[in-house]
Amino acid sequence: MIVVKKIAEMTAAVKEMKAKGLTIGFVPTMGFLHEGHLSLVKECRRSAAVVVASIFVNPLQFGPKEDFRQYPRDLEKDARLLEREKVDYLFAPDDLEMYPEGYKTTVEVRDLEDRLCGRSRPGHFKGVATVVLKLFNIIQPDMAFFGQKDAQQALILQKMVQDLDLDVKIRIMPIIREQDGLAMSSRNIYLSEKERRAAPILAESLKEARLMFEAGERRPAEIIGRMRDLIMREPLATLDYVEIVDLDELNPVAAIGGDVLVAVAVYIGRTRLIDNIILKAKGN
Amino acid sequence: MIVVKKIAEMTAAVKEMKAKGLTIGFVPTMGFLHEGHLSLVKECRRSAAVVVASIFVNPLQFGPKEDFRQYPRDLEKDARLLEREKVDYLFAPDDLEMYPEGYKTTVEVRDLEDRLCGRSRPGHFKGVATVVLKLFNIIQPDMAFFGQKDAQQALILQKMVQDLDLDVKIRIMPIIREQDGLAMSSRNIYLSEKERRAAPILAESLKEARLMFEAGERRPAEIIGRMRDLIMREPLATLDYVEIVDLDELNPVAAIGGDVLVAVAVYIGRTRLIDNIILKAKGN
Repeated sequence: MIVVKKIAEMTAAVKEMKAKGLTIGFVPTMGFLHEGHLSLVKECRRSAAVVVASIFVNPLQFGPKEDFRQYPRDLEKDARLLEREKVDYLFAPDDLEMYPEGYKTTVEVRDLEDRLCGRSRPGHFKGVATVVLKLFNIIQPDMAFFGQKDAQQALILQKMVQDLDLDVKIRIMPIIREQDGLAMSSRNIYLSEKERRAAPILAESLKEARLMFEAGERRPAEIIGRMRDLIMREPLATLDYVEIVDLDELNPVAAIGGDVLVAVAVYIGRTRLIDNIILKAKGN
Repeated sequence: MIVVKKIAEMTAAVKEMKAKGLTIGFVPTMGFLHEGHLSLVKECRRSAAVVVASIFVNPLQFGPKEDFRQYPRDLEKDARLLEREKVDYLFAPDDLEMYPEGYKTTVEVRDLEDRLCGRSRPGHFKGVATVVLKLFNIIQPDMAFFGQKDAQQALILQKMVQDLDLDVKIRIMPIIREQDGLAMSSRNIYLSEKERRAAPILAESLKEARLMFEAGERRPAEIIGRMRDLIMREPLATLDYVEIVDLDELNPVAAIGGDVLVAVAVYIGRTRLIDNIILKAKGN
């Protein structure tokens, strides 16, 4: 595995691969890798001739009061994990390489970026879209892999790719969970032992939503109400949102007709966790 | 010359050219072509193996009270002119091809887009940056040609290309003028005969600026003052702005030390015209 720190070096390598007609698969990450990330890398390895992973904790997607500084980093361990998965290139630029002094350009995906997590994290998805566009331009992947855990991010990036006529296929891979259901996240490291025991409440509330749906419930308010009750019964949990939205515009649905996203964000202590499921209407 | 209306058709053609290793030169326009546009096309023809020109009157860069509907269009004549210049592909999509229903994504180049014309035309440069990014993604040019007449646009696009790590060389070509100095513009067609006779006042005021500079004047206020006086003496002219700004941030300069842009925007009757010169400090 070749570790690349400079954009110019990465684009030169990409040019060579392109000249050889090799398909490039890309897994962008913020590092501190877990099995969720590695599932993306494995699928990428199966799908593309060349696998490029990136590790970059993107300052542009953190709010001023968020955890950019504390965000966990372990480049050496990450590099070992990626090498084991036969990644060809690890692109790991520093902040100034990506955003030199006088940097000015941002991308936004209107409406979609203001919903769900966008309400609690203003500017977050603008930062995500911008860094992913930059990475796409540098790596020029044929396909790029993202996790379903960040459902809104996935939808926004798919919309950006479509709107900006980018020639990259976005592939969304299922959420990977701990044995007790907790969705894997680099931020789980923030949890105290007690908080860790409380954290599966997100997954449990979603499981309850699925059970209700399978029993025929189609009224979002009923499902959301039950989920809220469950979450609020957990003393360490503070609800940010529970929503049931359509998959195109992320607007709350009045009734569950087609496929919907059930998305939940909860503070466990001071750590904000997210999780989601998609409920598929019959016939899909 | 092959005329292409659909994005998918254009990207397929681009893929073939790329596979052959051909360099692609690109001239994006809004059509109603004049000698200014054709000077870009000629330079592109000299520089690239394949020349792609586009004609698209971009609704996103017009304000709600601006001239999107009236903007002059003559695709047949334009196609003849481009064919004469040995253009290989004319990409001429319609509005819905570029911005289908539900389109949401925009690009902005902070600060630069708010200055000069950006103040009179809020949202204009966001529209320009967005459409040019889309066109770059579709055409994937090695080089793209723009006119110095739209000096702020040129700087914004250069900044966007740099910030977003796009692999395209932006080339800026000199302003082409009528015999009496009026900078060529598709919008000159709006001018009545009387207005047309008044319109060279922009170029004349810039000529005066250059004379003062060459005589040693380095105080922007003095130069701007003289230009304003000249323009205000023309009864059909209404000043929008005269500014002397640096070439990096487009900020007004306190004294002319390095290279500066002298930019002017004037309404002649109801038609808004722009023009500019660059004053080069000694030793450049």
